[in-house]
Amino acid sequence: GKVFKVAVLPGDGIGPEVMAEALRVLDAVEQKYDVKFERTPANVGGAGIDNEGKALPDTTVAICKAADAILFGSVGGPKWESLPPDEQPERGALLPLRKIFGLYANLRPAIIFPSLTGASSLKEEVIAGGFNVLVIRELTGGIYFAQPKGIDGAGRDRVGYDTMRYSVPEIERITHVAFQAARKRGKRVCSIDKANVLSSSVLWREVVTGIAKEYPDVELSHMYVDNAAMQLVRWPKQFDVILCENMFGDILSDEAAMLTGSLGMLPSASLAEGSFGMYEPSGGSAPDIAGQGIANPIAQILSAGMMLRYSFGMVEAADAIDNAVAKVLDQGYRTRDIYQEKAGEKLVNTREMGAAIVGNL
Amino acid sequence: GKVFKVAVLPGDGIGPEVMAEALRVLDAVEQKYDVKFERTPANVGGAGIDNEGKALPDTTVAICKAADAILFGSVGGPKWESLPPDEQPERGALLPLRKIFGLYANLRPAIIFPSLTGASSLKEEVIAGGFNVLVIRELTGGIYFAQPKGIDGAGRDRVGYDTMRYSVPEIERITHVAFQAARKRGKRVCSIDKANVLSSSVLWREVVTGIAKEYPDVELSHMYVDNAAMQLVRWPKQFDVILCENMFGDILSDEAAMLTGSLGMLPSASLAEGSFGMYEPSGGSAPDIAGQGIANPIAQILSAGMMLRYSFGMVEAADAIDNAVAKVLDQGYRTRDIYQEKAGEKLVNTREMGAAIVGNL
Ligand SMILES: CC(C)[C@H](C(=O)O)[C@@H](O)C(=O)O
Ligand SMILES: CC(C)[C@H](C(=O)O)[C@@H](O)C(=O)O
Repeated sequence: GKVFKVAVLPGDGIGPEVMAEALRVLDAVEQKYDVKFERTPANVGGAGIDNEGKALPDTTVAICKAADAILFGSVGGPKWESLPPDEQPERGALLPLRKIFGLYANLRPAIIFPSLTGASSLKEEVIAGGFNVLVIRELTGGIYFAQPKGIDGAGRDRVGYDTMRYSVPEIERITHVAFQAARKRGKRVCSIDKANVLSSSVLWREVVTGIAKEYPDVELSHMYVDNAAMQLVRWPKQFDVILCENMFGDILSDEAAMLTGSLGMLPSASLAEGSFGMYEPSGGSAPDIAGQGIANPIAQILSAGMMLRYSFGMVEAADAIDNAVAKVLDQGYRTRDIYQEKAGEKLVNTREMGAAIVGNL
Repeated sequence: GKVFKVAVLPGDGIGPEVMAEALRVLDAVEQKYDVKFERTPANVGGAGIDNEGKALPDTTVAICKAADAILFGSVGGPKWESLPPDEQPERGALLPLRKIFGLYANLRPAIIFPSLTGASSLKEEVIAGGFNVLVIRELTGGIYFAQPKGIDGAGRDRVGYDTMRYSVPEIERITHVAFQAARKRGKRVCSIDKANVLSSSVLWREVVTGIAKEYPDVELSHMYVDNAAMQLVRWPKQFDVILCENMFGDILSDEAAMLTGSLGMLPSASLAEGSFGMYEPSGGSAPDIAGQGIANPIAQILSAGMMLRYSFGMVEAADAIDNAVAKVLDQGYRTRDIYQEKAGEKLVNTREMGAAIVGNL
C-alpha cells in the first residue's frame, strides 16, 4: 500500500479539537483503502509563538518540507492580537507558508448544503436549491508580496505604499487551474479584475483571455471586482468558477463563504505546482468556543478530503468523505453552530459529529 | 436671493430622463426657497464621445470649472464598450473629473427604505427595520492614481503593475470627513484596511487612530477588508460610517448598495475641499430601459438633494427632498424596478414619480 506523509498543524482555538476528528477520518480511510498516512504534528500560530517563539517555527517548516501535504487547523486568538502584524499567528504563519511552499493556487468552494439553506443571510428565493461557487485565488503574487512595499519618511511626511504586480507566467498558471477545475464542474469561468483602472488587471484580462482559447469547452466571462461584489449578493447562482488575483480573491472568497451561511463548514486547498498542498478550514479559530468540544469539525474533515483528492490522487476516498458529510447532515446531525431547532435535528458535539461521519464512511 | 451655478451632465442611457425630473425638483426648490439655480448642460460619457470626441470634453471641464457644483447623471452603454478602457465613458469621464476637481471624499449612503425591505436579497430577519450605512471612500488617491503604473516588457516577459500609496495628509482629510459625518449620525466609524498585509494600510490605521482622538464622542473600530465583506452580509446593521481607501471603498460601497436592494434609489456625493462637489446616482445608465420613460428618478433626485446639503448649505431644502421621497414611497408610488405587485402600490413612470415628489415638496 501507499504511504503519504502528512504534516499536522492543529494551531490554536478550536484547531486541535476539530483536527482530532479529521485524523479519525484519516484512520477510517486507512482501514478502508490500502493506504497509510504517516502524521507528524507541529506547532503553528499562537502555539508556535508560545512553544517555540514564532508563528512559524523552523522545526515546523522542516516537518512540512519532509511531508507530502500539510493539514492545517486554524490560528489566532486574543492572546496574540497585540503583537505587530508581521508576528501575529495568522499573518506570521500563513504568508510564509504560502511563499516557502509556492502555494500559488487557493481553491475555496462556497457551497450551500441543501439541508442548511436556512443558515444563509440570503432570502430563500435567492438561494433555493443551494449554490456552489468555487473561488480560485492566486495566492503568492500581487499586492501581498510584490516590492517595493513600505513606509518612507517621518511624521506627517510619511508615505505608505504597496505594489500590485503580476507577470504573464503567474497569471497563466492560475488560469490553467481555474479552467481545469471548471471542466470538471459547470464549465464556466468568471475572471475578476479592475481592468478599467489597474494596469496589472489589463495584463491579467489579456492573459486569461489568451489561455481560455486552449479550453474551447469552457465559457469565459470577465467582471469588474466591484460588480462581482454586487453580483454575488444579487444572484450567486450565476457563478461557477470565479478566478481572482490575490487581494480580490481574499475579499470575494470571504464574501462568498459568508453568503452560504455555512462558513464553519467550508474547506480550502492551497496548491503548489506538483502535488504538494496545504489544506485548511475557511473559518477561523473561534477562541470563544475553544476547549468546549462543541466546534463543528466538518470544515476540517472536508479539508482532509481535499488533501486526498488534490495531493494524494485518492478521488474515491475523497468522494466518500464528501458523501459521508452530506449524509450526516441529511440524517439531522448538527453541531451548535448549525442547529436550528427544527424537527429531525440532533444536537451533537465535536466528537459525536466526527463519529457520525466516520460511521457513514 | 442666492444664485448657485450648476453644471448639468446628464450623460447616457437613462441619465437624461432621470435628470429631467431632478431639474423639476430644483425648479420646485426655487419656488419655495429664495434661491436660483443657474444650470448649464454639458456632454459627458458616451454623449461626450459622440458629440465632442471624448468622454470628458474640454468644454465640459470649462463649464464645470465655472460652476458651484456638478449634477451628474450616468454614463456608459454597449455602444462604447469596445473602446480602450481609458477612453470608455465611465473610466474616461469619472477619473479625470475626480482628479481635476480634487473630489477626494466620496459619500455613498446604503439605505434600506422601510417600505422597500422586500427588494433586498437579505432575509427579513437580517434587515428588519432597515439599515443605514454611510460608506466614505477616499477618491483621489491609492491604487487608482499613484505611480508607477503600467505594463513593461514584451510577450511572455510582460509584467503589469500598480502602486497603492497614501500620504499622511491624504488619510487625515478623509478621516475628518468620516468623523464629522459620524457625529451627525450614529457616532461610530469603522475604518477598513488590510493592515496585516499592506504597508499603506499600516499607515492608514495609524493615522486614522490618531485623528480619532480629536473626536472623543465618536467610537472608532478597525476591520480588515475581507472581514468587512463578510460582516456586511452577516449583519449590516452593525455599521454606521464605514471609512475606506479608494479601492476597498469601490468594492464595499457597491456590495453595501446591492445589499439594500435599492440600488436604483441611492445617491452619492464626491466632495472637494471647500464646497465644490459632484453628485450622481450610485446605479448605472441602464441602457436596456433607456428612452422608455420608466426609469426610477429617485437616485438622481436624492443626488440633487445632497448637492443642496453639501455644496449649497441648504439643509432645510435637502431634508425636504429626502422627506418628499420617503412620503411618495409610503404613498405607494413605484416605478417598475421597485414595483412588487402588493396592495397599495401604484405603478408609475419616470415623469409621474418626479411629479409625485415635487407634489410632496
Ligand atoms: C491572515 C491573512 C494574511 C490572510 C490573507 O489575507 O490571505 C487571510 O485573510 C486569508 O484569506 O487566508
Ligand atoms: C468606472 C470606475 C472607474 C469607477 C471606480 O472604480 O471608481 C466606478 O466603479 C465607481 O465606483 O465610480
